[in-house]
Amino acid sequence: MSGFDLDAYLQERRRLVDVALDRFLPGEDTPPPAVHRAMRYSVLAGGKRLRPILVIAGAEVVGASPSTVMPTACAMEMIHTYSLIHDDLPAMDDDDYRRGRLTNHKVFGDAIAILAGDALLTYAFQLVAQNAALAGVDARVVCDVVAEIAQAAGTRGMVGGQVVDIESEGKTITPEQLEYIHVHKTAALLRASLTVGARLGGADAPALAAVADAGQSLGLAFQIVDDILDVEGSLETLGKTAGSDERKQKVTYPALHGIEASRREARGLIERTKSRLGVFGARSAPLCALADFVVERKS
Amino acid sequence: MSGFDLDAYLQERRRLVDVALDRFLPGEDTPPPAVHRAMRYSVLAGGKRLRPILVIAGAEVVGASPSTVMPTACAMEMIHTYSLIHDDLPAMDDDDYRRGRLTNHKVFGDAIAILAGDALLTYAFQLVAQNAALAGVDARVVCDVVAEIAQAAGTRGMVGGQVVDIESEGKTITPEQLEYIHVHKTAALLRASLTVGARLGGADAPALAAVADAGQSLGLAFQIVDDILDVEGSLETLGKTAGSDERKQKVTYPALHGIEASRREARGLIERTKSRLGVFGARSAPLCALADFVVERKS
Repeated sequence: MSGFDLDAYLQERRRLVDVALDRFLPGEDTPPPAVHRAMRYSVLAGGKRLRPILVIAGAEVVGASPSTVMPTACAMEMIHTYSLIHDDLPAMDDDDYRRGRLTNHKVFGDAIAILAGDALLTYAFQLVAQNAALAGVDARVVCDVVAEIAQAAGTRGMVGGQVVDIESEGKTITPEQLEYIHVHKTAALLRASLTVGARLGGADAPALAAVADAGQSLGLAFQIVDDILDVEGSLETLGKTAGSDERKQKVTYPALHGIEASRREARGLIERTKSRLGVFGARSAPLCALADFVVERKS
Repeated sequence: MSGFDLDAYLQERRRLVDVALDRFLPGEDTPPPAVHRAMRYSVLAGGKRLRPILVIAGAEVVGASPSTVMPTACAMEMIHTYSLIHDDLPAMDDDDYRRGRLTNHKVFGDAIAILAGDALLTYAFQLVAQNAALAGVDARVVCDVVAEIAQAAGTRGMVGGQVVDIESEGKTITPEQLEYIHVHKTAALLRASLTVGARLGGADAPALAAVADAGQSLGLAFQIVDDILDVEGSLETLGKTAGSDERKQKVTYPALHGIEASRREARGLIERTKSRLGVFGARSAPLCALADFVVERKS
């Protein structure tokens, strides 16, 4: 790889995102306080901010600036966070810890956790719509972006993957079913993050196709590595209980294919990602470095 | 009142909405089937379709046709339905019946009910965005409509009202707190239904202000009448257990102000609604008849 300083890039983008999230979210004392505290608790708990950074990187790879996409970048993090809050509920995965802290419902109760998730999903679309007020952004593109995000987050994307994931618990599933879960539950939103960033940044059709394909491979690689980390990781590095997939009898990529084949598959997908980004020349450096990071990360 | 045939108007609009809802919702066998069945079960359970009809009436009062707003009309019904599914959950109001049938989680389980609600909220925004593809609709207006709906459905609207409602259970609350709950939990979405219909129909600023004010009064009157019906109604006419607010120790408008004062207040709000619609002349006939219906209905 080039001498691109990924750490500095990620740190700077993450700082921009954290500042914007804090600014966009209603304050803790805004009535009614309970739900706003719950929203802020989970969104501002840290995390890699991978989805907003992908939105920004998607804009940058076609030559636009981070400021053009910041409301939409924050919206993707809110959608991701809402899905975590709802997934952690007793009626769903019943998890007590997330990102090293008690889960939302353990702190605020199930009712407020459900409503905080609902509110984050709702507010996300408000932010995307408000993105249309920024200079250089076409309202028709924003409408396409709203539709694309909704598709990626709905039953043909993230929610659909979660449904099949829940239905598969404790059952024998095929490699095809596992790929369905991964592609829908995780990859769809990661891919959409990259493509809506590029769309808002003014990408033409060929650029959008390259970005969409790269996002798909990257998203799938991310989930395979997540599965590997769940088998290998520790509470310390993951911020959640390692082996929790196994405990919940969830089938993982390494469980079906073995650790070594999983690593090979993830690396192959990352090579594909970087190859598809080649058309963008030097502008692809941040995304290519990010792709390497996704497969090499330890948490 | 004029000789306007409200029954025929409502029946025709409801039929249009029911056909469109059936068409927009993914089929029962679309993978993954469980969540699509759950979505269809609750959305297609019938109901007054008041919110979509308000969207249509909002368009018609400014001279636009129902077809211009149909995706957004259906979106409002999906948002309303998602809120009912989540409100009925054991972690929230814990209701077993709704519209005379078992609630969503009683049939599909809590996990699928949560996800079906999430999916309906998500899909609603996809439909609103797709409304931009219809002839005569400006993408900038659609972006404003997405933002307005999100605001009305979020913590400054419906979700905010639900949070305070839940927090108030079993407590003494003031008339101001009860009005906060009513204005946010119910009136916000009803008002938004009317105003986004008018917006998409091409309303100018003064028309929009009149419609917004009318929608606010109408929404509040609707909730007061709902409270009266909960005290007076029966399972047969309501499709849910009468007195359920009392059983859950929820404070209602009649409990604070008495039945007669509640009726007077509702009638006064309806007069205000009709007065604000006067500027639209003959075009206001459907909405004025609808306003009378809201206060005189028995279920």
